[in-house]
Amino acid sequence: MQQGVEHPQVLSLAAGLVDASSLPLTETLEAARSILSDESRGRLALQYGTSLGDLRLRQQLAEYHNRLERTSVPMRTREATADEFVCTTGSQQLLALLADTLLDPGDICLVAAATYFVFLGVLDGVGAHTIALPADEHGLRMDALTAELQRLESVGELSRVKLIYVVSEFENPTGISLSLDRRAELVAIAKDWSRRRGEMIYVLEDAAYRELHYDGSMPRSVWSCDADGDTVIHAGTFSKSFSPGLRVGFGLMPHELRKSINDLKGNQDFGSANFNQHLLAELLASGRFATHAAEVRAAYRLKRDAMLSAADEFFADLSGVSWVHPHGGLYVWMTLPPHVATGFDSPLFRRAVDVEQVMYVPGELCFGGPREQRERNHMRLSFGVQSIDGIREGMRRLNRAVRG
Amino acid sequence: MQQGVEHPQVLSLAAGLVDASSLPLTETLEAARSILSDESRGRLALQYGTSLGDLRLRQQLAEYHNRLERTSVPMRTREATADEFVCTTGSQQLLALLADTLLDPGDICLVAAATYFVFLGVLDGVGAHTIALPADEHGLRMDALTAELQRLESVGELSRVKLIYVVSEFENPTGISLSLDRRAELVAIAKDWSRRRGEMIYVLEDAAYRELHYDGSMPRSVWSCDADGDTVIHAGTFSKSFSPGLRVGFGLMPHELRKSINDLKGNQDFGSANFNQHLLAELLASGRFATHAAEVRAAYRLKRDAMLSAADEFFADLSGVSWVHPHGGLYVWMTLPPHVATGFDSPLFRRAVDVEQVMYVPGELCFGGPREQRERNHMRLSFGVQSIDGIREGMRRLNRAVRG
Repeated sequence: MQQGVEHPQVLSLAAGLVDASSLPLTETLEAARSILSDESRGRLALQYGTSLGDLRLRQQLAEYHNRLERTSVPMRTREATADEFVCTTGSQQLLALLADTLLDPGDICLVAAATYFVFLGVLDGVGAHTIALPADEHGLRMDALTAELQRLESVGELSRVKLIYVVSEFENPTGISLSLDRRAELVAIAKDWSRRRGEMIYVLEDAAYRELHYDGSMPRSVWSCDADGDTVIHAGTFSKSFSPGLRVGFGLMPHELRKSINDLKGNQDFGSANFNQHLLAELLASGRFATHAAEVRAAYRLKRDAMLSAADEFFADLSGVSWVHPHGGLYVWMTLPPHVATGFDSPLFRRAVDVEQVMYVPGELCFGGPREQRERNHMRLSFGVQSIDGIREGMRRLNRAVRG
Repeated sequence: MQQGVEHPQVLSLAAGLVDASSLPLTETLEAARSILSDESRGRLALQYGTSLGDLRLRQQLAEYHNRLERTSVPMRTREATADEFVCTTGSQQLLALLADTLLDPGDICLVAAATYFVFLGVLDGVGAHTIALPADEHGLRMDALTAELQRLESVGELSRVKLIYVVSEFENPTGISLSLDRRAELVAIAKDWSRRRGEMIYVLEDAAYRELHYDGSMPRSVWSCDADGDTVIHAGTFSKSFSPGLRVGFGLMPHELRKSINDLKGNQDFGSANFNQHLLAELLASGRFATHAAEVRAAYRLKRDAMLSAADEFFADLSGVSWVHPHGGLYVWMTLPPHVATGFDSPLFRRAVDVEQVMYVPGELCFGGPREQRERNHMRLSFGVQSIDGIREGMRRLNRAVRG
């Protein structure tokens, strides 16, 4: 962020913002008009709401979530109800509330390497101990998760493990989704070890990019694999699929946790902006959200294709360079030969920014755990903000920077 | 809140909500239209904002704040600048962020008895130790503040004192404002004792009701008495004067603190809803906010008058019953004879709710410190929500409940 501000002339493949031209000006104004030109609806929307969030929105969220699950694989699944939802200021606030509620200083959160770097900051902020576990093309490795839990038990630290965090869909930064098999396995492991230690180990499923899927089937959520409904928290947001400026996110979670989150949120802000919740409820009910999300998906699919074509064009002949083909999300994760560091203080980053005028997010920012163990040869390349031409030009510049 | 939900047929003099008929439907829709029908403005408003808040809003806030100060007494005052502001989800979020930043478990916050009960909950939530000090018709007593600081020093606890909290304008629940003299004195005391212990004791000025002043002159803010700009945090909101559903609040604060709050807010939510900040900036710039606030003020003044007339009509002949005449805000604070308890479990409260069908907020909820030291014979009566007829009817019912 700071780097971007300091170099405004640089072409950014770093920013995780959404495409400005996709923002729903007409849809939002229409929804505002529907609500505010009706006296009783307008008054409700401009009055205080509740900490849990507007009931109509939560009903719409339940329908929306159940509809998504019904189009996912396998079809038969658990149904969500309105009273399982909490509305938040983006899904970020939900992540922060959960970290605050679940983790005391020194408590352990298990994450994938690499994962969403902002959440790593949140974990640091509450004094939690983050352990980064290996992932592959199917997401977080379950054998590594089990081995780590065994290790923690053997050193007497199992009681500190409170949370397993996964970005289930199109991981930021790697673009990889957790495979269907591993979803069920993850829930089973969490339940098994919760029983073993006599206290809950929760699974936080961050599904921020769920709507941005471009090809292939969509697996059922991790949440839907939790038949008892006591283990998984599902975090979602309309920031990627609609508008980050409205800051409407949500969590779907076990009853006991919802009570704690409601109390904490009551103290923190009495509930997120009620007006915005009414806007989203209207947009979901009218079908305008679904139409817009489909347009956004189509536009990002083209951008994803443009970035992958440019990667082929400019990087296929470079030995030791590889990248993930993401089926959704906003990012391409590129890996350079092990000896090529990509960090802010690396020659590559300086060359990219100062000489070639292109920016990326250094992969090492996305690794939790001890600094010396982080992989230093990755780049997160975002196709969210730039135009198709901008994406190709960015990749061309990046190629020159990598060639040196 | 819970009591209100359980007794929907009861006439509420309890709820601190604003008058639904005063809510700015037209103004909000107009502002939404101005922003969203302009492509470049609309895109900015629907995109991510920053943790500190929209610069245009912060510029408008500085102008707005300086204008308020120029109409207050004495006129000559300190000027605020845009970069001293942080925008939050209501002022509640600011209070919570400050409590989180400034207070470790066991740290001390000094407050008036009685004061804003939701903040007492926030202080409990972060494990702070709240000490309630006596107030009179001029607000928090400065002699009592000094005496308590001396006592804390003598028992070696001065180093735990981190914050002094005052609702400077029309205290919720008492309706009393801090007198002009005491504002300057409060800042001087905080600075003096900060020097003495070698670490800051901050003053948090909660000015949530500042716009709702109905008669008399408005004193300069406590913030404006802090010439060095290192001691006072000023918290404001548009929830009372405009719309709580937009949840736009703000803080004006020393540079060092703003940095900490920005970091914490970055982790918690990346910034409050950007769209709503653009709405408020537009409403301030266009003058529509000022016009609406003046209307709201006039309407609440009539309601305040109605409640005071009804108090005269129904309570003047009851011996030992007195009440504060507030010059602003939303509440009349009524005191019954010392032996008449008003709490949820008191005969009076049961009679009021179950028999007479009227509800108030028991005063004891508004006292910090040990439960056994709380005064139990007050009621907070709100004139915010009810119509003028409803206010009189509520006071009539309350009279019957008090007479028993």
